[in-house]
Amino acid sequence: MATLAPVLDSLDSNFDTSLDRLFDLLRIQSISTDPSFSAECRKAAEWLVADLTAIGFEASVRDTPGHPMVVAHHDGPAGSPHVLFYGHYDVQPVDPLNLWDRDPFDPAIDTDETGVKVIRARGSSDDKGQIMTFVEACRAYKAAHDQLPCRISILFEGEEESGSPSLKPFLEEYKQELKADFALVCDTGMWDRETPAISTGLRGLVGEELTIHAANRDLHSGSYGGAAANPIRVLAKIFADMHDETGRVTIPGFYDGVEETPTEILKSWENLGETAESMLSPIGLSQPSGEQGRSVLELVWARPTAEFNGITGGYTGPGFKTVIPAQASSKVSFRLVHKQDPQKIREAFHAFVEERLPADCRAEWGKEHGGSPAIQLSYDAPFLSKAQAALSDEWPKPAVMIAMGGSIPIVGDFQTYLGMESLLVGFGLSDDRIHSPNEKYDVESFRKGQRSWARILDALAK
Amino acid sequence: MATLAPVLDSLDSNFDTSLDRLFDLLRIQSISTDPSFSAECRKAAEWLVADLTAIGFEASVRDTPGHPMVVAHHDGPAGSPHVLFYGHYDVQPVDPLNLWDRDPFDPAIDTDETGVKVIRARGSSDDKGQIMTFVEACRAYKAAHDQLPCRISILFEGEEESGSPSLKPFLEEYKQELKADFALVCDTGMWDRETPAISTGLRGLVGEELTIHAANRDLHSGSYGGAAANPIRVLAKIFADMHDETGRVTIPGFYDGVEETPTEILKSWENLGETAESMLSPIGLSQPSGEQGRSVLELVWARPTAEFNGITGGYTGPGFKTVIPAQASSKVSFRLVHKQDPQKIREAFHAFVEERLPADCRAEWGKEHGGSPAIQLSYDAPFLSKAQAALSDEWPKPAVMIAMGGSIPIVGDFQTYLGMESLLVGFGLSDDRIHSPNEKYDVESFRKGQRSWARILDALAK
Repeated sequence: MATLAPVLDSLDSNFDTSLDRLFDLLRIQSISTDPSFSAECRKAAEWLVADLTAIGFEASVRDTPGHPMVVAHHDGPAGSPHVLFYGHYDVQPVDPLNLWDRDPFDPAIDTDETGVKVIRARGSSDDKGQIMTFVEACRAYKAAHDQLPCRISILFEGEEESGSPSLKPFLEEYKQELKADFALVCDTGMWDRETPAISTGLRGLVGEELTIHAANRDLHSGSYGGAAANPIRVLAKIFADMHDETGRVTIPGFYDGVEETPTEILKSWENLGETAESMLSPIGLSQPSGEQGRSVLELVWARPTAEFNGITGGYTGPGFKTVIPAQASSKVSFRLVHKQDPQKIREAFHAFVEERLPADCRAEWGKEHGGSPAIQLSYDAPFLSKAQAALSDEWPKPAVMIAMGGSIPIVGDFQTYLGMESLLVGFGLSDDRIHSPNEKYDVESFRKGQRSWARILDALAK
Repeated sequence: MATLAPVLDSLDSNFDTSLDRLFDLLRIQSISTDPSFSAECRKAAEWLVADLTAIGFEASVRDTPGHPMVVAHHDGPAGSPHVLFYGHYDVQPVDPLNLWDRDPFDPAIDTDETGVKVIRARGSSDDKGQIMTFVEACRAYKAAHDQLPCRISILFEGEEESGSPSLKPFLEEYKQELKADFALVCDTGMWDRETPAISTGLRGLVGEELTIHAANRDLHSGSYGGAAANPIRVLAKIFADMHDETGRVTIPGFYDGVEETPTEILKSWENLGETAESMLSPIGLSQPSGEQGRSVLELVWARPTAEFNGITGGYTGPGFKTVIPAQASSKVSFRLVHKQDPQKIREAFHAFVEERLPADCRAEWGKEHGGSPAIQLSYDAPFLSKAQAALSDEWPKPAVMIAMGGSIPIVGDFQTYLGMESLLVGFGLSDDRIHSPNEKYDVESFRKGQRSWARILDALAK
């Protein structure tokens, strides 16, 4: 490891100045959702461009209709892979401000209630601390070897916390410039304080708004009860039909493209020690509601679902009104895995509903939501095993390959617009209070995160 | 019919002055829901006391915590039945006032769009015009014979349009004074313009508020979908289980006390000519939703139902939120017939729900609503057949015995507090626009209504 050791040494000896740099970035109030902080967002982008330029990147601020992007490039040795690193410099709003123990934009090293040293500030974990772990690794490489181990491009977004409105057009426009062999995305977390994690699967999403219409107006249940169709009853019947007694979704074709997770992966998930009890008891539950015979982690990471996210119909105020409503509305979503096709799922659900409509009732479909397929990396992709080994070298416990129940849109966008896969590695912890008052990032996350990226870049270059 | 003819003659020759009296009453703005009209409510009560006193009743205004009652008594021949006539002098609010073609409290004879002469004013049909049909019949009896054919008590309420808060305690307190052989209630309608109707059945009502609780907070469906119970799904399953494919309610014991309607009554309902088409097409439907193989009239008049009156859970605003809600709430009601026991139905429903709760879910029961049994007169009660014959003599077509899908609380209250049955006869028409702008009462309803009560009193006395 002739090339790696001096890089790690450089990181260790410059850790305090890396903290100073991070604090400078954390002081910038780059709240993307509030237009009155626009100038601060630009300031963060400019700060990053200046810092990357100082390292030797060719970096620039790129205007968008919203907040600017930062794009930077640095050559690597001939034959080395080309990676695109992604993170975001914008942060969540800070209200309610009175719940913060200190000014969210005046970062400090603080000691947690458990005695752990943390960096306290808005954005420390999400995502400024995380992106600086990578920037510091690059800086140390340059300091130690005057070069980077790979060809590296960087994309920092300033609208991640406000729905990324400019991202897709930007990727489309700068496709040639941004396309790399694969992406490194640093916006996720560790499994726990000692165990680094690589997210290899993200569930996709299809959302539908469904309204059942029956009579042309609300009816008195005395005058019409027994004669007139009740749309709540119709909707309830359709919903009840959507799962069988074993928790499987009954929509024909729903499981097309769903694969069984490799046994060794299931085994490694088992070893994580997450049980129905440990996952569900904090939310007041004890038994998994999904398909029987599968662990909770498999259920949320590798199985598709049908969920009812909202329903409303008839009289819902205080007291009672004996009404038969004219309509009942709902929001239904499906989490997708593996190769399930969002459009086919949508069509199958529509057909399932239409088939069950009694005479006189009609289904109205609202705006389509979601529509993203699942992301599933091949467990045998070389960059995965390299990153896993590198992380395992750094942390007390070996890195695990996990999955995520939700989606991270950027990963799908990189797939769609740039045709590349993403390696998701991050050092956040579940108690980082991102999006909440008193956000923090463990000092160890920042320190070992820098070292982790140095190791990963070293491994990827080989 | 020596006694009846002069009464009818008196009604006919005094019809114009009876209209003057009704107009005087209609000019009083006795809106019970709005406290600023309290003095007007009292004025209406006093006007009625004065009028009844002029006829020879011993009449008085009786204070309550709300608007006053009017109670009046008049002796009848020895051996004649004692009847209690009920109606209400309060009226609905008049807004939106701009939709009225004239001042709602400036009554006038108007000609309807179909050429029919009508009395136009708030309260003309509901219920001032109706109660005055009875008062005028009494007046004519006294004019013709200086006596009434029966012993008659009268109860006029001033809070019917605001939920009758004072009624039950009043009946309880004046039980001895108000108890009669049976009640005459004039707050219903004709079958159609030519066909008078007696309502012999009223469905009862049980209402329940049911909330299903699952997790202790709303969850992200990405992180928990597949693991956490969804209360909307649980509620949908329970609701879906409540009816079988033939439309029957599946709650065990639900049909206990439900009787089959006599064939001749079903036959008479068939003759009314109401079909699924005629009843449902105005509300945009075509097929009855209730138990298969029964007519729409039987379904709403003589069969019990389970209805879903309201449901809400999760995110119901614009757009989408991929939430698994902590709870889902609903309002469910049952229309009862014959001898169904409201309390038993309530308990059976609770048991039905509790049995279907999956692990981790619990049912929260809100305030109980309704709780009134059905009212079903014996089809062979003598006062029924007498009234039916009397009405048939007055109108172009024979009187029909119908039922009502909803409840009229006073009928149950008379049963409960005074232990007496009610004869429901009224002369309203479905196009009277009660509770709406431009309320009217047909001049013929008022004229033949008076004559009908004269005939009924004559018949009951025999």
